[in-house]
Amino acid sequence: MISKDTIVALATPSGAGAIAVIRVSGQDALHICAPLFRSKKGKNLLDQKSHTIHLGHIIDENRVLDEVLISLFKGSNSYTGEPTVEISCHGSTYIQQEIIQLLLRKGCRAANPGEFTLRAFINAKLDLSQAEAVADLIASDSEASHRIAMQQMRGGFSNEIKALREELLNFASLIELELDFAEEDVEFADRSQFRALIERITKVLKRLIDSFAVGNVIKNGIPVAIVGEPNVGKSTLLNALLNEERAIVSDIAGTTRDTIEDEIIIGGIGFRFIDTAGIRDTKDVVESIGIQKTFEKIEQAQVVIYLVDSSDLTADRITELQTEIGKIKNKYPQKPLLIVANKVDKLSSEAATTLSNTIEGVHLLSAKNNIGVDTLQDSLLNFVNTGALRNDDTIVTNTRHYDALLKALEEIQKVQYGLDSGLSGDLMAIDIRQALYHFGEITGEISNDDLLGNIFANFCIGK
Amino acid sequence: MISKDTIVALATPSGAGAIAVIRVSGQDALHICAPLFRSKKGKNLLDQKSHTIHLGHIIDENRVLDEVLISLFKGSNSYTGEPTVEISCHGSTYIQQEIIQLLLRKGCRAANPGEFTLRAFINAKLDLSQAEAVADLIASDSEASHRIAMQQMRGGFSNEIKALREELLNFASLIELELDFAEEDVEFADRSQFRALIERITKVLKRLIDSFAVGNVIKNGIPVAIVGEPNVGKSTLLNALLNEERAIVSDIAGTTRDTIEDEIIIGGIGFRFIDTAGIRDTKDVVESIGIQKTFEKIEQAQVVIYLVDSSDLTADRITELQTEIGKIKNKYPQKPLLIVANKVDKLSSEAATTLSNTIEGVHLLSAKNNIGVDTLQDSLLNFVNTGALRNDDTIVTNTRHYDALLKALEEIQKVQYGLDSGLSGDLMAIDIRQALYHFGEITGEISNDDLLGNIFANFCIGK
Repeated sequence: MISKDTIVALATPSGAGAIAVIRVSGQDALHICAPLFRSKKGKNLLDQKSHTIHLGHIIDENRVLDEVLISLFKGSNSYTGEPTVEISCHGSTYIQQEIIQLLLRKGCRAANPGEFTLRAFINAKLDLSQAEAVADLIASDSEASHRIAMQQMRGGFSNEIKALREELLNFASLIELELDFAEEDVEFADRSQFRALIERITKVLKRLIDSFAVGNVIKNGIPVAIVGEPNVGKSTLLNALLNEERAIVSDIAGTTRDTIEDEIIIGGIGFRFIDTAGIRDTKDVVESIGIQKTFEKIEQAQVVIYLVDSSDLTADRITELQTEIGKIKNKYPQKPLLIVANKVDKLSSEAATTLSNTIEGVHLLSAKNNIGVDTLQDSLLNFVNTGALRNDDTIVTNTRHYDALLKALEEIQKVQYGLDSGLSGDLMAIDIRQALYHFGEITGEISNDDLLGNIFANFCIGK
Repeated sequence: MISKDTIVALATPSGAGAIAVIRVSGQDALHICAPLFRSKKGKNLLDQKSHTIHLGHIIDENRVLDEVLISLFKGSNSYTGEPTVEISCHGSTYIQQEIIQLLLRKGCRAANPGEFTLRAFINAKLDLSQAEAVADLIASDSEASHRIAMQQMRGGFSNEIKALREELLNFASLIELELDFAEEDVEFADRSQFRALIERITKVLKRLIDSFAVGNVIKNGIPVAIVGEPNVGKSTLLNALLNEERAIVSDIAGTTRDTIEDEIIIGGIGFRFIDTAGIRDTKDVVESIGIQKTFEKIEQAQVVIYLVDSSDLTADRITELQTEIGKIKNKYPQKPLLIVANKVDKLSSEAATTLSNTIEGVHLLSAKNNIGVDTLQDSLLNFVNTGALRNDDTIVTNTRHYDALLKALEEIQKVQYGLDSGLSGDLMAIDIRQALYHFGEITGEISNDDLLGNIFANFCIGK
């Protein structure tokens, strides 16, 4: 998997634009590119300094492929830590492909997904969690996800882990040293200092593990199911939420229209709205396919909004509604459920009061007249513990890190138990080594090809 | 329209990718960007040389937006001919937008479509036909369209026009000088040399005007209507044409699936296949809506392929077919029509011979077994005069240039007539000036805001 050849890929999004950037990295990057480039000023690329830009043509035999700018990164002064050439060409897909094909013929290999960042990791330009943050950064679509990825890329998270690992490694060495002098019964490792460190590590690990609940929400958005009959005002509600915050509806790049989800950013957090139209498409409410589908959607959601048209609420309908709400609460007792009565502008104030009193906790709202939209947003945000976010604390968003942290905590708790029960040094040393192993997995001090393969396979090509 | 402020735009295609490039151009480009950039090495951007690259962070107040590479182009040493900063950031749309928003707040203006290239033209980095070639180059999707755009961008076409204009201008001055000495009846302009020049210009103009027929085909592709019943093997035929040449099916960027047309490159020329399924959806063949729609498609096409399933050709069907072909030939006598009998692999050799003899000029083909596909390709290519292309002659692809060339030729013919009929110098000078005007329109030596507005409005933003 880890190879020394020279790789090439388009680094900018595919499709036509003003310009495109083709990235070439590897020991031969310069030697492959230099003969294909005819500088406007007659310069030889090989003689130029690192971090300089050169105007000229890319030539395939005698055919001019394009006028380009070449950016040079020499020695290890590049993103990948190896010689890199970036070719900024005109953004026609035809030209992009012609240049890439030419480079492939001249000895480059097409890069695998994430291979540039993998090389940056291998060449110690980034640790593993920083490399993973690069992918998160590219995928970031809200202020919160951006902030976390940026913090992680700048090493906030791994520095904390590395520092703790260093201290723990120090104690491990001392305890292992004791084993060599076992017959003399000496203690090189101060047990009270060690106990303090273990407590500190436990605290940090617990905080990081707890942060994952928030981190996961921030990274993936909160899935919200809107349950209700057709025409109760779902899209008006979405638009009202949208305008209120001047947020953006995400347009997930590269997908067709069918798979675009309505995503709204509220307070920097993404909420993904799952369409559950059709709850009462059939009149056989209870056992109908409609309610079955609704249940499926509710299972995928983290928050449920039950949207009704308040102007349509006859006494019969209210009874029916209470039955339905009862069923949902009964089936999903832990799932937050917001009952939202839309179109209250059509109601008299008496009718509104009656509604409030009849259905417990109902949100009265007029999406059209923008009444009650802000309180609904607050209610949605309340389901996220955004404290950590505001305090700029480290937040774990990556499942792999979460798993490693859980395993590290388990081992640390064994060490703690060993300390409490006066376990012998040699047994304790094994638990410490296990904890160290899991710490190292996060930053990549411990890694293997399978792990790296899994991580970088999720990158885009060109990064 | 022509302004001196500093403009900003995304230069790479929209959507997420490994990296994105944001381009800032204008007198204040450096002064706007420098305070927002914190160099890794503590460098001040203002002190750095042109054509250098710098690693650091983009900072909005205290918030780190991204780790970026900054490329500097100082003075007039840039694409636009004015100070330019290119910011290469991570390819998240969120980050792109945050950086662009920051630059807008700090005094940049969002660039209009083509405004960078407009500035390059105004700052005399490109003439007008070269600037137009930039848009053509970005849109190029075949070898032929790429070659023509590249040639035009490198000045092949405008150099020829400029040289002729220069010579003509010289004679114009001499003839106008004669007017000042009218009473002395001198001739500064050698009439036989002038006549030779006019003949040379006429020849060049006619060649360029003739080349437009080819140029237009190359730029826009040749629309081909495939007429036939469903299931006669249209998609198999398209795939066979495709595989034969290892060509690409175009995926027109930024559009949804509905509007993707089947485009196939044969011999460097794009052929766009118009779907005409349904010719015989109704049994009332002659006056049916089916045939009406087919006629509409045929009108849009430059070549018509009538595709039939040869294994389905009963005597009755052949008679029917001949009637239909007769109708098409009758209605469109000038339109090239290729009768293609597919699935000949299912025919005995006797049956194939009979078919050849019954239907004049029929192409026997088996798309599935790749029989007769190459001869069909040759037939399609024969409809394009690709001689000019192979000889690397200048080819006009732009309607605006074509119009100006036609007008210039008209004026030159008036001058020719004036020479032949011994027209007085003052009258001839007017015609020469008119011809010069139309020459100047092509290269942009003569331009106005409306003209520039029309040209650059068709560019993408960021170029």
